[in-house]
Amino acid sequence: RKVSRYLQWAQSSGTGPLDCRRTLCFGSLGAWAGEAELCKESDEVVLRTKDADDLRFPFVWLRDNCQCSACFHQDSQSRTIDLESFDINSKPKLVKVVGNKIHITWLDGHISDYDFEWLKERSFQSHSQESWLTSMYRLPRKTWTAQSFNKILTRYKFSDVLKSDAVLYNWLVSLATYGVSIVEDAPAESTTVRQLAERVAFIRRTHYGEEFSVRAKPGTTNVAYLSANLQLHTDLPYYNYKPGVNLLHCLVQTESDGGSNLLTDSLAVADWLKTDFNSSYQALTQTVVDWNDIGQEDGNYFHSIHRAPVICEDRFGEIERINFSQPQRDSHFNVPLDKVKLWYKAMDKFTKAIMSNDYCVTYKMAEGEILTFDNIRLVHGRKKYDDSGNSIRHVIGGYLDWDEIWSRIRVLKNV
Amino acid sequence: RKVSRYLQWAQSSGTGPLDCRRTLCFGSLGAWAGEAELCKESDEVVLRTKDADDLRFPFVWLRDNCQCSACFHQDSQSRTIDLESFDINSKPKLVKVVGNKIHITWLDGHISDYDFEWLKERSFQSHSQESWLTSMYRLPRKTWTAQSFNKILTRYKFSDVLKSDAVLYNWLVSLATYGVSIVEDAPAESTTVRQLAERVAFIRRTHYGEEFSVRAKPGTTNVAYLSANLQLHTDLPYYNYKPGVNLLHCLVQTESDGGSNLLTDSLAVADWLKTDFNSSYQALTQTVVDWNDIGQEDGNYFHSIHRAPVICEDRFGEIERINFSQPQRDSHFNVPLDKVKLWYKAMDKFTKAIMSNDYCVTYKMAEGEILTFDNIRLVHGRKKYDDSGNSIRHVIGGYLDWDEIWSRIRVLKNV
Repeated sequence: RKVSRYLQWAQSSGTGPLDCRRTLCFGSLGAWAGEAELCKESDEVVLRTKDADDLRFPFVWLRDNCQCSACFHQDSQSRTIDLESFDINSKPKLVKVVGNKIHITWLDGHISDYDFEWLKERSFQSHSQESWLTSMYRLPRKTWTAQSFNKILTRYKFSDVLKSDAVLYNWLVSLATYGVSIVEDAPAESTTVRQLAERVAFIRRTHYGEEFSVRAKPGTTNVAYLSANLQLHTDLPYYNYKPGVNLLHCLVQTESDGGSNLLTDSLAVADWLKTDFNSSYQALTQTVVDWNDIGQEDGNYFHSIHRAPVICEDRFGEIERINFSQPQRDSHFNVPLDKVKLWYKAMDKFTKAIMSNDYCVTYKMAEGEILTFDNIRLVHGRKKYDDSGNSIRHVIGGYLDWDEIWSRIRVLKNV
Repeated sequence: RKVSRYLQWAQSSGTGPLDCRRTLCFGSLGAWAGEAELCKESDEVVLRTKDADDLRFPFVWLRDNCQCSACFHQDSQSRTIDLESFDINSKPKLVKVVGNKIHITWLDGHISDYDFEWLKERSFQSHSQESWLTSMYRLPRKTWTAQSFNKILTRYKFSDVLKSDAVLYNWLVSLATYGVSIVEDAPAESTTVRQLAERVAFIRRTHYGEEFSVRAKPGTTNVAYLSANLQLHTDLPYYNYKPGVNLLHCLVQTESDGGSNLLTDSLAVADWLKTDFNSSYQALTQTVVDWNDIGQEDGNYFHSIHRAPVICEDRFGEIERINFSQPQRDSHFNVPLDKVKLWYKAMDKFTKAIMSNDYCVTYKMAEGEILTFDNIRLVHGRKKYDDSGNSIRHVIGGYLDWDEIWSRIRVLKNV
């Protein structure tokens, strides 16, 4: 997937020559062997090095990011510059290189020092920004199909995830990259999902509570708690803040033929749709669908509604979320009449591909396995099964949100 | 604010005449005194009534929303139609009116019955959709300025919110409409915020935990825990799932002059900017800013990043979120060089208005008050203060998410 999409106007970014009037220049052979220059036409400090392109930093950005103790609170890693007195027209009087530092004296007498490496990491060159974002913000995703599923599926031992930061990191990176991974050899206890979630951060609570127990229940207000087929879906599309990752811990698997899980990487299907049936793709990205859930859990009534397309793109045209749920799609469909048939046609195409053998895999969890997958990206389902007196299928689930997972990945990466 | 923005292609929706071939029509004088007709050109059922426009429902939508027990699971209020066998080309053989019901026999023999009132609520007429959405999905927001603040500020007694559903509803509607409200006469206990949150749903957890205690702390990793000025900001802009509503319970107020809260309805400021300085508005809606938080809480390390503009618009051009925080704005600014100065200029204009006496109000909480406000929409701050030995300012905070608040509003509305 194209990394440059995370950047805005990537095409307009560059380091082409500007008509710089060299006003004050203190060349120096410090450890990074370069020189600093003020460019008054462009209001930038230009750092010239022998072995790389020039680095250009606007005066206003430099002043805004002064790292002195009056402007930046080290303990909280936070900018403390007063908004009221900040002058967006601040200009340096003098810039010089002192060892690895760029030293600026501003016209009002304020002094700022910047490490060269610190500045380099914040370069406005598009390739630097791309590489920073894909290593620190979002790792690149890789799509998979039924054919490649076995190759991309990773497995980690529960006890290893709990005791090793490296294994924890690898599991989370698998989840971020492929949207699915298995944690195995987990203890047959009701607290296992919580332990795993708390190794990352904490269980994401919803109106169904924290852990949820998936077992056939009579008189349920949720179709997941039936032993019938559970069609492919994403969980809780009726939440604006839809839970990020599903952790499904298999305590007891059915002895009958059924009970397998179904999984499709709907990102792969959406990519195919975009290429081969673009008008259908457009209908699914532009038609806003009402998702809802009406019911109660332990006496707490809820009525959730979220309106969003089946395929949600972010501002860069990247797919940021898939909403898919036959039971939780509202009968209220607030679109103009002339869009209705087009949407159903597009949805039919998408749905058939999502369910096809090309994209959909069947996986029957063994007892002690925790199937973990991205609920923003994958659709999942379950084949019907028959409980017998001795084997009552029992799965305990819990959610993690991506905000917390990304945070944990970054912390572990920096260890 | 324009309600029609919540609808897509509102302009293309209509009920204009179509060249309908009347194929099967069973007029009837049921309780709603109308007739049903199949329109094969448009694949729609048309309901004609004397006193209103025709209601048109596409065949595919009707089949998809059959309410019989094979197609719809009443207990869970969920569609159960099998995706695999669903035929988007389903056609009725016959439609007739029986009392208040529209009865359809499909070509494959399946039978569907729909209440007229149920259908009417799901009309594809744009005015019906608008009125349904503004009463059920999102209530209209009303902006305020410093001048109108006292008029829009509502107060509810803590004990009334806890015991009366009507008061709970009114408080939440105030929050949704104006983004701010005060709950007063609350007990001076550390569990008060939790009680209030659990009256709605549950406290939204973040990497700072559930309740947070705002008191001057030495060596803090968050600038909120200093007694210095806390500049206007939204909380946690570095979360994709940014907490929705802030509940700040004043246990002890400082006896010194400071400690007042500052509040601005940044939706009002953004509206002004859009009208009077549109290019600045565009810069703030289109330039993606990096928000971050690096630190630890009780030994749990975090490194959060979220990338989003200061003013975030939804797909209908409505403002859905404001991000504003001097301390939590990252020094990494991943935009092309030529956008940097423009953004700072626009930000300067927005910031000065946000801090101005036209928009910003000062409110010093009394002990026992809970200041509740929309963290997606308002910015808040705090004036510096001096703790004396006997009065250590102490505020306990907690968050609620809008998914849960809207759900509670809908449930209460239907009671």
